[in-house]
Amino acid sequence: MAGGRRGRVTLRDVAERAGVSVTTASFVLSGRHDMRISAATEERVLQAARMLDYRKRLVPGTAVPTGAPAIGLISDVVATEAFGGEMIRGCISAATERGHVVFLTDSEGVDELEESAVRALLARGVDRFVYATLGTIEYRVPEALAGQRLVQMNNVDPGGGVPAVLPDDHRAGREAAEALVAAGHTDGIWLVGEVSARSYAAGKRLAGIRAGLRAHGLRLAGHVRCGWWPGESRAALASLLAEGWRERERPTAVIAMNDRAAMGVYQAVAAAGVRVPDDLSVISFDNSDVARWLDPGLSSLALPYFDIGRRAVELLLDDAAEPRVHKLAMNLRSRGSVTAPSRIPSAGPGRFPGRR
Amino acid sequence: MAGGRRGRVTLRDVAERAGVSVTTASFVLSGRHDMRISAATEERVLQAARMLDYRKRLVPGTAVPTGAPAIGLISDVVATEAFGGEMIRGCISAATERGHVVFLTDSEGVDELEESAVRALLARGVDRFVYATLGTIEYRVPEALAGQRLVQMNNVDPGGGVPAVLPDDHRAGREAAEALVAAGHTDGIWLVGEVSARSYAAGKRLAGIRAGLRAHGLRLAGHVRCGWWPGESRAALASLLAEGWRERERPTAVIAMNDRAAMGVYQAVAAAGVRVPDDLSVISFDNSDVARWLDPGLSSLALPYFDIGRRAVELLLDDAAEPRVHKLAMNLRSRGSVTAPSRIPSAGPGRFPGRR
Repeated sequence: MAGGRRGRVTLRDVAERAGVSVTTASFVLSGRHDMRISAATEERVLQAARMLDYRKRLVPGTAVPTGAPAIGLISDVVATEAFGGEMIRGCISAATERGHVVFLTDSEGVDELEESAVRALLARGVDRFVYATLGTIEYRVPEALAGQRLVQMNNVDPGGGVPAVLPDDHRAGREAAEALVAAGHTDGIWLVGEVSARSYAAGKRLAGIRAGLRAHGLRLAGHVRCGWWPGESRAALASLLAEGWRERERPTAVIAMNDRAAMGVYQAVAAAGVRVPDDLSVISFDNSDVARWLDPGLSSLALPYFDIGRRAVELLLDDAAEPRVHKLAMNLRSRGSVTAPSRIPSAGPGRFPGRR
Repeated sequence: MAGGRRGRVTLRDVAERAGVSVTTASFVLSGRHDMRISAATEERVLQAARMLDYRKRLVPGTAVPTGAPAIGLISDVVATEAFGGEMIRGCISAATERGHVVFLTDSEGVDELEESAVRALLARGVDRFVYATLGTIEYRVPEALAGQRLVQMNNVDPGGGVPAVLPDDHRAGREAAEALVAAGHTDGIWLVGEVSARSYAAGKRLAGIRAGLRAHGLRLAGHVRCGWWPGESRAALASLLAEGWRERERPTAVIAMNDRAAMGVYQAVAAAGVRVPDDLSVISFDNSDVARWLDPGLSSLALPYFDIGRRAVELLLDDAAEPRVHKLAMNLRSRGSVTAPSRIPSAGPGRFPGRR
């Protein structure tokens, strides 16, 4: 992992770091899919590009100056949980460009730790803060931050008044529906994943999905209300498959509420001899690592975490920033999991992978 | 995610936060497997326990004092990549107990950013540091940290002289081999995952595996030299399966170098109609989220990241700490992926999932 060389980053730097040809790196970074590139190679190229992004943005020879101003990045569990790290990377990237360092603290959602961290940063002259949450939620920032220069990252104050940066989950829901309709799916589109009132993202995604289908005179054929973890969606789908969809519309496609729920769908249908995408198309949200790791690769609406982090810091350092919500698009990352519809076979009682 | 209540944490707090019964929470936390608990439920219980761990350790009403001393946690990509967050959680946990706050910075492995972060922390009176790397590596810490009170976390100075905390990968390798031998495997044990000179962990794991087998007069039947990502191990295994193991000893078990490589093994054998564990046992290292998500659950030697983080901070705050390497055990987390041996069928040319 240790540091790089001086100068600007070239495509060759990325290719060398990833251990692939310049052509391969170029194909991955330009998002072309007319060349067979393994998920692992894509993974290495994208990671190398992210890592080297810093050097590209560092003017040769000039690092952040000694005594540089610092930004306090206050988070619940973004650094300690697995999924939101790209938000931090985005913050560091933008802060570095503007000559700031970032001090990060995770409170694990414990009020006392959050307050201690804020006070400790204030005591050291830090006066600009990004407040980050792993989940996209409505959240009133803590007292200790009142009156400080602040941007909310992946969370929004229900009362407004603080600039906030969020992913556009509603639009992502619409695009998930559009992608399936464009592939020919009509009356066999199921949703997998519960929509709890506590999840801001879930509500927006569902509303977007319904709007997207409504625009074509369509509606969801069914909704599997299960948790967003592989074991939960796997067990729920296995039960439905075992029933052979008797009283239900058999699905031609599934929209999973996140990639991990989609992983459970893959497992349940595989255990029942149903093939993705031949028998069942699957599309999902987040574009986390799992989407690249699944076989076939999972088409997923990408959380723009890196850009969310960059935008949050840019707004923080731009004192003219309006206290409004900035929504960033979640773009579809197409892989092999969506194709033309074909009714999934009536399976009859099968294995219950989730019940092992 | 937002904060908790005063007072000590009870098993009921964990159960409530996880949304399970107190009995279920108790079974998960005590590691009992004589009750069927889904991977998702286990996931929720373990996460709730980790989150609430802080409250358990916070004496009611007393938070870290204003102007508390701070520890600088300098890392390459531990906060921004997905896998090492529990090290950070462990650092915060131990620091909180001892009245310290933790300021974290990720340098992405860019020397200038690392130096800037260290200088910025020094300029604010921070004089104790933990130097963390995501990969377990030999690493000489940067000049800027020379003379500072320092502990290396998941990395070690080849010259010694700095206290370091590492996972015991050699012992983990031995225990992986022992677990397969104990299940009855003898001459059909394959290793999956390249062993590069750059990876400290890989070399130790391989040496441990060989020592463990040697103790029983056994040796590896073969070694699939592929990358440690699902797509790479999937493609490599698919090729071998398609060859039908003609000139090779057919495997009864696979030791994967990490959980992601094991995921690719699951995918390749599933595509060839080979069942885990019935036809092939699989064991691996890390016990990352993926090990819980796979179907069947993957038996894996757990990286003790949380304890590594706690130990690093304890050593840092204990000025009497010797400058030696502290190795923490990687314990086997048994799931459903290992059973008695049965030769995998000679498959003949099959699908090449990795070549899609």
